[in-house]
Amino acid sequence: MRRRVGVWLFGARGSVATTTIAGAAALAHGAPPAGVVTELPDFAGAGLVPLDHLVFGGHDVIETPLAKQVERLAAGGVLPVGLDALIGAELAEAERNLVVLPAADTQYELVRRIAEDLKAFRLRNDLDQVVAINVASTEAPYGDHPAHAEVGLLRTALAGEDVLPPSSLNALAAFEAGAAYVDFTPSTSIRPAAVRQWAVEKGLPYGGQDAKTGETLVKSVLAPMFTARALSVQAWSGTNLLGGGDGATLADPQAAESKSISKERGLAEQLGDVAGQVHIDYVEPMGDWKTAWDHVMFSGFLGVRMTLQFTWQGCDSALAAPLVLDLARLSALALEREHVGSMPFLGFYFKDPVDCTEHSLTRQYDELVRWVRAC
Amino acid sequence: MRRRVGVWLFGARGSVATTTIAGAAALAHGAPPAGVVTELPDFAGAGLVPLDHLVFGGHDVIETPLAKQVERLAAGGVLPVGLDALIGAELAEAERNLVVLPAADTQYELVRRIAEDLKAFRLRNDLDQVVAINVASTEAPYGDHPAHAEVGLLRTALAGEDVLPPSSLNALAAFEAGAAYVDFTPSTSIRPAAVRQWAVEKGLPYGGQDAKTGETLVKSVLAPMFTARALSVQAWSGTNLLGGGDGATLADPQAAESKSISKERGLAEQLGDVAGQVHIDYVEPMGDWKTAWDHVMFSGFLGVRMTLQFTWQGCDSALAAPLVLDLARLSALALEREHVGSMPFLGFYFKDPVDCTEHSLTRQYDELVRWVRAC
Amino acid sequence: MRRRVGVWLFGARGSVATTTIAGAAALAHGAPPAGVVTELPDFAGAGLVPLDHLVFGGHDVIETPLAKQVERLAAGGVLPVGLDALIGAELAEAERNLVVLPAADTQYELVRRIAEDLKAFRLRNDLDQVVAINVASTEAPYGDHPAHAEVGLLRTALAGEDVLPPSSLNALAAFEAGAAYVDFTPSTSIRPAAVRQWAVEKGLPYGGQDAKTGETLVKSVLAPMFTARALSVQAWSGTNLLGGGDGATLADPQAAESKSISKERGLAEQLGDVAGQVHIDYVEPMGDWKTAWDHVMFSGFLGVRMTLQFTWQGCDSALAAPLVLDLARLSALALEREHVGSMPFLGFYFKDPVDCTEHSLTRQYDELVRWVRAC
Amino acid sequence: MRRRVGVWLFGARGSVATTTIAGAAALAHGAPPAGVVTELPDFAGAGLVPLDHLVFGGHDVIETPLAKQVERLAAGGVLPVGLDALIGAELAEAERNLVVLPAADTQYELVRRIAEDLKAFRLRNDLDQVVAINVASTEAPYGDHPAHAEVGLLRTALAGEDVLPPSSLNALAAFEAGAAYVDFTPSTSIRPAAVRQWAVEKGLPYGGQDAKTGETLVKSVLAPMFTARALSVQAWSGTNLLGGGDGATLADPQAAESKSISKERGLAEQLGDVAGQVHIDYVEPMGDWKTAWDHVMFSGFLGVRMTLQFTWQGCDSALAAPLVLDLARLSALALEREHVGSMPFLGFYFKDPVDCTEHSLTRQYDELVRWVRAC
Repeated sequence: MRRRVGVWLFGARGSVATTTIAGAAALAHGAPPAGVVTELPDFAGAGLVPLDHLVFGGHDVIETPLAKQVERLAAGGVLPVGLDALIGAELAEAERNLVVLPAADTQYELVRRIAEDLKAFRLRNDLDQVVAINVASTEAPYGDHPAHAEVGLLRTALAGEDVLPPSSLNALAAFEAGAAYVDFTPSTSIRPAAVRQWAVEKGLPYGGQDAKTGETLVKSVLAPMFTARALSVQAWSGTNLLGGGDGATLADPQAAESKSISKERGLAEQLGDVAGQVHIDYVEPMGDWKTAWDHVMFSGFLGVRMTLQFTWQGCDSALAAPLVLDLARLSALALEREHVGSMPFLGFYFKDPVDCTEHSLTRQYDELVRWVRAC
Repeated sequence: MRRRVGVWLFGARGSVATTTIAGAAALAHGAPPAGVVTELPDFAGAGLVPLDHLVFGGHDVIETPLAKQVERLAAGGVLPVGLDALIGAELAEAERNLVVLPAADTQYELVRRIAEDLKAFRLRNDLDQVVAINVASTEAPYGDHPAHAEVGLLRTALAGEDVLPPSSLNALAAFEAGAAYVDFTPSTSIRPAAVRQWAVEKGLPYGGQDAKTGETLVKSVLAPMFTARALSVQAWSGTNLLGGGDGATLADPQAAESKSISKERGLAEQLGDVAGQVHIDYVEPMGDWKTAWDHVMFSGFLGVRMTLQFTWQGCDSALAAPLVLDLARLSALALEREHVGSMPFLGFYFKDPVDCTEHSLTRQYDELVRWVRAC
Repeated sequence: MRRRVGVWLFGARGSVATTTIAGAAALAHGAPPAGVVTELPDFAGAGLVPLDHLVFGGHDVIETPLAKQVERLAAGGVLPVGLDALIGAELAEAERNLVVLPAADTQYELVRRIAEDLKAFRLRNDLDQVVAINVASTEAPYGDHPAHAEVGLLRTALAGEDVLPPSSLNALAAFEAGAAYVDFTPSTSIRPAAVRQWAVEKGLPYGGQDAKTGETLVKSVLAPMFTARALSVQAWSGTNLLGGGDGATLADPQAAESKSISKERGLAEQLGDVAGQVHIDYVEPMGDWKTAWDHVMFSGFLGVRMTLQFTWQGCDSALAAPLVLDLARLSALALEREHVGSMPFLGFYFKDPVDCTEHSLTRQYDELVRWVRAC
Repeated sequence: MRRRVGVWLFGARGSVATTTIAGAAALAHGAPPAGVVTELPDFAGAGLVPLDHLVFGGHDVIETPLAKQVERLAAGGVLPVGLDALIGAELAEAERNLVVLPAADTQYELVRRIAEDLKAFRLRNDLDQVVAINVASTEAPYGDHPAHAEVGLLRTALAGEDVLPPSSLNALAAFEAGAAYVDFTPSTSIRPAAVRQWAVEKGLPYGGQDAKTGETLVKSVLAPMFTARALSVQAWSGTNLLGGGDGATLADPQAAESKSISKERGLAEQLGDVAGQVHIDYVEPMGDWKTAWDHVMFSGFLGVRMTLQFTWQGCDSALAAPLVLDLARLSALALEREHVGSMPFLGFYFKDPVDCTEHSLTRQYDELVRWVRAC
């Protein structure tokens, strides 16, 4: 019998989600799976669910139809012109699985209702497994609360007061519905210990955070290069220019803070104390495109100073979408293998990987392949 | 008893050799070993000869005193100002070990005389081992000859006609003198099968070729990044601007050909067929400094086109010198371990590594560490 | 009465010509005239022919329909998606004015036949003036011939032997048909003195050569900056990566030679003797797009060395098309003013401007405005 | 009789002042006047005071000897190694003319005492004219005060309360001592109307502000290029990385604010409303060097989007020093010509030029030459 895996997207009408849904449909029509890591030969024969067995659904706070979003992304050069005509049926199917965010009096009740939506999605589509992935806009950092420390305290607190941001409530709802949860963003979601304990209580896997799609991807191979060559990096400065929805969110200094903290954490762990700042600028005319410039000053033999600069010009949605497909397949495999708790073998995908201290991309890749082939 | 290792440099008065000799002296005076990979914790306790047990000697076609070269390199910002005053004694000692290239009627006789020089160096300095490293200017490609195929044919041919370029004669002389041989350049040296057989006959190790110090170093981490992310590189173009002796040599289109071939071989093995050219321009006012610009066009999800550009600004001699120290220590270890034939575990250092198909820098590093710690 | 100006394009089905024709049609439908210099307020009221009074015609060696070319350029991101639907009528009208290159036994006869085509174009479309612009592929440099020196010698020679390349024959044909001639390329065309004398004999204006659309445009403002600040440029190196038809032509080293010579001439006149090379690489996957990287090393106070690098990413056809419209209008104005001979006031547009030694873009602009407003 | 001009530097022990003083001495010893615009042929014969007739003096809040500063700048690659040995006499002479900032009970009294220092400098060195130039660290913006509006109100206010920042007091002191005043920085100095009226009352010239030495210099030629070509700039983003004293000052967000406002004013006047931010980052290991990266997104024909990026790597002190020499000579000429009030013809030198709306560098240059040659 054909296994079917549901992919529940929080932020289901955003650029990343739309590109993922439209892209999966395009692949079903024969587009080559560029950027889909799990289609590389290293992953063959490991029992990953075929890409055309993925069924998409999700929540969003906006209500723009998927087809409109596809049109917008095609005009912006993210999706091929004319794709919408080809994939009308798939878009319509996904559209039927998209629901509006429910409302509730308490956060506890809200979690329950979101979980109901996921359960209905599973039933309606006859799904064997459901994987929930957060691709919503980055939230501002959320203050600590004593109830974050322990699952029992959290359960009690949720019934009485607001103690968690939306991303964490979504994670809890996923666990309540028996779904794996992966956070593609640097939001709070699974950061509180109590949220992680909740997953473990339910016997479910979780992973994240903050996918490395562009500048940080490059950093994750350059930093180990300097380390391996015993070249001491003195300063690493970066400027990210981006438009689109992501840019507008990050124009909010608080959300940008979540992002910057997450970006710098990885670098610091690799290189020790280096000077330099990271800027994230919203530049509206750039649309869905992003340009990052990094300037690295390092010192070589006898202290001679040298520099490496790079400029990355990419489209985040197009970089992210195939990774969302990867993470859906890999989390479904983890569910099948009854993996419980954090998935450190997904470090390859993230700037701030849960329970993973390896920041060299090559070693993270090797670790991922090892896990996939383990059984 | 204190082990002493001789480092015989072909091209002993050039920028790389001078920086190596002056640098080793600076380290002995307390300069931190920036760029010396074998000083990283991963290499501790493996029995590598201490840096201050290295004794330098060599050949060159030019006769400028080392002290003059040090002065020139300090003026060009490659060596710290005032270093010469500090390391006068060490320079004088190395100067005593430098000899002029002998002359001979046949190539066979020339090999014998060069080997005599190496033997004399060993004796005079009471050395336990000698490692010969080619840091001379890059030669033009040398035509094939039937005698290149087999050591017996080569031995006969050498007595009668000119069948090898200087770099290969130097390699043979090293083997005749019981020394390990490493080629830091892309010259012919150990490319002919007969030269390699000669090393094996003598029970000696050899390694190379074409150290990756700058642009290619960066390529060696970026190319695997694209591969690991299933992003297809469509074009990789590069322009290298350099002055100094190396630049002047490469201004000769034939020598540049050796270099370009070597540079592109690595990239092709990693990425398959990509468009784009590599230029090496001699820009006299750049002195010992080099600037490389690379432009990489790749296609992501659904064929969306993106680019990565990088600009590397470095000083080749300062990047090369600590690697020469590494290679001397590692080859000495290979001699001690009675390793015979090619040293593929040195792939980490080379653009065109002998008997090594792994081009990911991280994996090459891991392989090197594994070998060093093996015993 | 409404004045109508014919624009005869040599290379009328190429990317530049197609973008010009399609673009003029788009402007007529209300697109803003971005990049059309003669639409700036400085040019108002000078009696330039309105853009929608231009009528397009021309020759080409290829026969692909304009509509097909428009489709290709839209797919490549040069023209807006959906433009073809809007401008069908205008494309069809231009298509009717495109003819195939005639054949003839002698070059003299060929000139006559091409001139017939131009005259027929004028008659058929009831045109007040005709301006011929060369936007064909760059030719290889053409050898000198004694007949190039004087118009009488040339007339005799043309009847007997092949003494001129196509671009020069086209120029002569334009003059024979009473048209102004402007060369957008660095081909031979009006370089021979005899060709220029021919124009003067006929009382017609000519101009060119080699439009500055990208890298050279930037150079033309940066070079005067260094000069004005008394900063001595030591080296200027450039690499141009381009695909498309222009790239393929320039992949031919001979055509590239025409281009490089033309590019370097301007720089040398501004900066004196500087080191560095200019590369033009054909990189097929870049399509109609071009990326240029320039590296400028200069020395400041007390010889301190500094650098400026720039990366230009543009689409040559989209940069060229509005300039073709400018040149058509300006040449028509010259015809109206009965200007005879070279048009040095067009220096603003060219890398290698005829009879113009001013290379500062700002001063060239001021000179152009002065001429336009002169009457 | 030999004319002697005094150059009084506020911030006389900083990097710019030290490089200026040491550089003038080096020129006297035969170094070529690279970067000194007034040594270009265009300025010959206009009666500018010879460079070796300049006598340096000034104030500073720090007390490090000039010789120590020269040493530090030589170690940082700003001044040639070994220069100090050559120019000992000149440094000692300038050192004798440096005084500590006086103290006083009221701002009025402080102005008087600083003016005394300038008068003493003139007398002691038998100077024909004195020019005061502000090269001190950039101040934070200073709040408005009613007394800033009119010179009478200001005179009264100064006796009773603190109404001006140091830079403005220095300007008043210069005027009281009969000196011209030029502000090389974006500090408050001559911004208040009352300060300018004070200069006019005394019959003296003043000029500034905020010298364009690097990134803004490049902007001042690129922005007119886009304008002249009718290319609409949509976004201009910039990141400036710098160490040294200037960097440390600008790490203070308030001082950086003065700088950023000044930088953006010029751009806005040229291009209209464009998106994008300007960052100034203090990167301590960069020492006296600065790297700026600018990213310009513009749209061409039919809205096609293109980009220009540039990276400027320079040393601000070495770029500034020859301009300080220029400004001293030009202000001395203005004094000689009895020019009163603002000097708009100095716009060529400044980001935020007083009473000058022309921002094209070429036109500013032409205007300067015109003024110099006027008499």
